[in-house]
Amino acid sequence: MIELNFTEKQTKNVSFTCKIKRTLHTEKSSFQEIAVLETIEFGKMLVLDGTVQTTIEDEFVYHEMITHVPLYTHAEPKRILVIGGGDGGTIKEILKHPTVESVELVEIDERVVQVSKKYLPEISYALNDPRVKINIRDGIEHIKNINTKYDIIIIDSTDPIGPAEGLFTYDFYSNINKKLTDTGILIAQTESPFFNKELIKNVFKNISSIFPIAKLYLANIPTYPSGLWSFTIGSKKYDPTVVNISAKYDINSKYYTKKIHNSCFVLPEFVKELLI
Amino acid sequence: MIELNFTEKQTKNVSFTCKIKRTLHTEKSSFQEIAVLETIEFGKMLVLDGTVQTTIEDEFVYHEMITHVPLYTHAEPKRILVIGGGDGGTIKEILKHPTVESVELVEIDERVVQVSKKYLPEISYALNDPRVKINIRDGIEHIKNINTKYDIIIIDSTDPIGPAEGLFTYDFYSNINKKLTDTGILIAQTESPFFNKELIKNVFKNISSIFPIAKLYLANIPTYPSGLWSFTIGSKKYDPTVVNISAKYDINSKYYTKKIHNSCFVLPEFVKELLI
Repeated sequence: MIELNFTEKQTKNVSFTCKIKRTLHTEKSSFQEIAVLETIEFGKMLVLDGTVQTTIEDEFVYHEMITHVPLYTHAEPKRILVIGGGDGGTIKEILKHPTVESVELVEIDERVVQVSKKYLPEISYALNDPRVKINIRDGIEHIKNINTKYDIIIIDSTDPIGPAEGLFTYDFYSNINKKLTDTGILIAQTESPFFNKELIKNVFKNISSIFPIAKLYLANIPTYPSGLWSFTIGSKKYDPTVVNISAKYDINSKYYTKKIHNSCFVLPEFVKELLI
Repeated sequence: MIELNFTEKQTKNVSFTCKIKRTLHTEKSSFQEIAVLETIEFGKMLVLDGTVQTTIEDEFVYHEMITHVPLYTHAEPKRILVIGGGDGGTIKEILKHPTVESVELVEIDERVVQVSKKYLPEISYALNDPRVKINIRDGIEHIKNINTKYDIIIIDSTDPIGPAEGLFTYDFYSNINKKLTDTGILIAQTESPFFNKELIKNVFKNISSIFPIAKLYLANIPTYPSGLWSFTIGSKKYDPTVVNISAKYDINSKYYTKKIHNSCFVLPEFVKELLI
């Protein structure tokens, strides 16, 4: 029987291979190579420029953790902006919060949205929600030019190579800061503590210099390099490690719990040392 | 330039590949295939029957977490038994605890000890400590036949296929229970919550039925399948989630901290559900 494999080169020296049943879609958009694969272990998988973005089986970890930690931290998150995240998984989690009134998705590549809508409805269905507005636009330009303010801005980006490079810079975080309300929160996915130590250090230093409260937290994502992933919060008022969330509303989740909200900020010694 | 790769088939459908500089050693012992590889990403790596056991770069996570959690939980751990763990990494961590008087290592395969001593001195050096006694013997037979009792028994086994299969059974845990003191603690490595759900469920059920206190905790190991690893504790008296360790002695560590001791027991929702 034919054996089909997808391999991601996670670092120069490590790669991750999944057996696949078939390729459901491949194309080269104006920005990147987009593929949807049907893997045996993780179900359907979205791949951009050869890098796993999300899979049916483990998407819940990333999407819950990039969303629920900042949204539970904020007292009343109403207006949310997501930069990147064209697959809609983050939107799906945001809309679980009853306070949310509007979500704007700013995605540079329209084809990611369209492909996700067609092939990954289990993840992308919330993109059709009436509270959601999709803007096909460069996130960096958008942040410079908008006149509105948000309660929470989520940087749901690809890796800092190619189209997402500018989403990991001091200038970008600084411009985001100006487009957050006085109680606003920035949250960014910030790669693996095992493989991206310098990036995590730099991002944390930058966010710490812009926001009065900066924190890093971790989650376990099996299809991402090393299986351990970091997220960095910059917050103007609310401290995610102090806020009392136990009396708040409940949501359905498979990874996030109110106890995980606190424990995810407890860092292994080698990760703590990156932030000093 | 020649490219050399080592690939582990982590599940039927997922594999993990590391570029290697060279193979330092390969042999077939009476029990298994033993290899020491020099990888680029993780430094030297011990591989048994094609499965990564430990590497220079990430060994600290597994060895610290299988050791410090139970040893800090016990009020005064003096006599420790390690079943498996012929590379000596667990012993190295055990000897950081000032209360420890003796450590016995029961390893079925003498060649693992010898190869680790020769090729992985950074990990195995503690095997030469005068407090350590090495017994080349089947752990299952050893537990049945010894007349001594231990404060802590650590099952530092390979996967439950091949020589280690019997180390994941009710009978084995039950026999261990009889060879622990009245305040004794059993700790076992229990695989990945993403890939080994049934195993974790069964082990937890068994350990819960034998010990008054049973708990599961997690750690992030990049070279193990899914990057997320579980450990199961069975304890006769001390509850690892309640014991106050803040005033205790400090040790040098790169992953474990006293705060991690508590947070590692906070489980993602999908892991909690395995233990109900």
